[in-house]
Amino acid sequence: MRRVNLTLYFVTDSTGRSESEFLETVRGACEGGVTLVQLREKEKSGLAYLRLAEKVKQITDAHDIPLIIDDRADIALAADAAGVHVGQSDLPVYAARRLLGGHKIVGATAKTVPQALAAREQGADYLGVGAIYPTTTKVVTVITAVSTLNEIAAQTGLPVAAIGGLNASNLHALYGSRAGGIAVVSAIMNSADPRETASALKRQVLENFGRAGL
Amino acid sequence: MRRVNLTLYFVTDSTGRSESEFLETVRGACEGGVTLVQLREKEKSGLAYLRLAEKVKQITDAHDIPLIIDDRADIALAADAAGVHVGQSDLPVYAARRLLGGHKIVGATAKTVPQALAAREQGADYLGVGAIYPTTTKVVTVITAVSTLNEIAAQTGLPVAAIGGLNASNLHALYGSRAGGIAVVSAIMNSADPRETASALKRQVLENFGRAGL
Repeated sequence: MRRVNLTLYFVTDSTGRSESEFLETVRGACEGGVTLVQLREKEKSGLAYLRLAEKVKQITDAHDIPLIIDDRADIALAADAAGVHVGQSDLPVYAARRLLGGHKIVGATAKTVPQALAAREQGADYLGVGAIYPTTTKVVTVITAVSTLNEIAAQTGLPVAAIGGLNASNLHALYGSRAGGIAVVSAIMNSADPRETASALKRQVLENFGRAGL
Repeated sequence: MRRVNLTLYFVTDSTGRSESEFLETVRGACEGGVTLVQLREKEKSGLAYLRLAEKVKQITDAHDIPLIIDDRADIALAADAAGVHVGQSDLPVYAARRLLGGHKIVGATAKTVPQALAAREQGADYLGVGAIYPTTTKVVTVITAVSTLNEIAAQTGLPVAAIGGLNASNLHALYGSRAGGIAVVSAIMNSADPRETASALKRQVLENFGRAGL
């Protein structure tokens, strides 16, 4: 299995930002110590997605942080990213795994134990589980209980990142859970100081999550 | 180079159709003798795109017609399609070629001689050139002259399909040109009898295009 540190998983959202603003936020997050970056673009053409991935990878490489591409395994391969993340309506995990081979990371979103077990069976290296809280980045959100997250982590044995509306003020719901870390979009994207926000969130996770940093 | 018969290249558009209606149209087109099929989906999620590609491939396989996937090389690979087609804002030709290897088809859209030469340089097997006429399937259309198409075919030596608003009543503009065939969307998609329309268009191309069927 490919090892992945989920302590602070930064999932991007470039919507409504200039490219330079966006890249500055990514840079700040990396300087602040995020442990994994996912580039998530739902509207961009293939070429624009690839070009942005190449630019983000220059930043993540400089900080030795793996870059994950949302959904498009072809973009992940073309950009030589560390891996791909697939949701339930994206490319299936087995297809992503077959395309990426055994050395790249495949992550999957799971909201239920059966989804999580299927993802593991098909070759997922880690799971994003949520949404723990309602989120502004997805229109329709199904809330996943922390108990479900714990059950998923226990039954799959995979590293799990909690996702969905998480920020410094509500993170305590996950203290003592089986989450290995958190995935955040807005908390960092919308921060006036992404570097400081990332740094503080990471500290908070490391000090309060039993499995962080593994 | 992978050989490809561009005589009648059917490019699909599932917008506003039920899946069963859509698949019936594809089946009719195949029965009518289209020589190549491209599945083009701009709105579908990765999973829905893959599932539809698998269903279309059952039809094209039964008629021994190669299936090309628009833009997404990962879907093309996951569905084991014959190849991928990329436009100027999609994955670059070189990336598609690298991902698909030497045995699959990579097609590219070109509107100018420099674009066409770059596509050939990067590994394209054929070119779609147009739009010859305004088209209802793309919002913004730049018209390409038949003389440009001839220049592209002459300078690249690649097989060229003329595309853009083509139907039985305006095909004569391409008689005597260097086009090896035509790519059509609406002419077949919107036909009440896709089989008969495809059959008649194919006959018209074969009888009037010097390079058809090569």
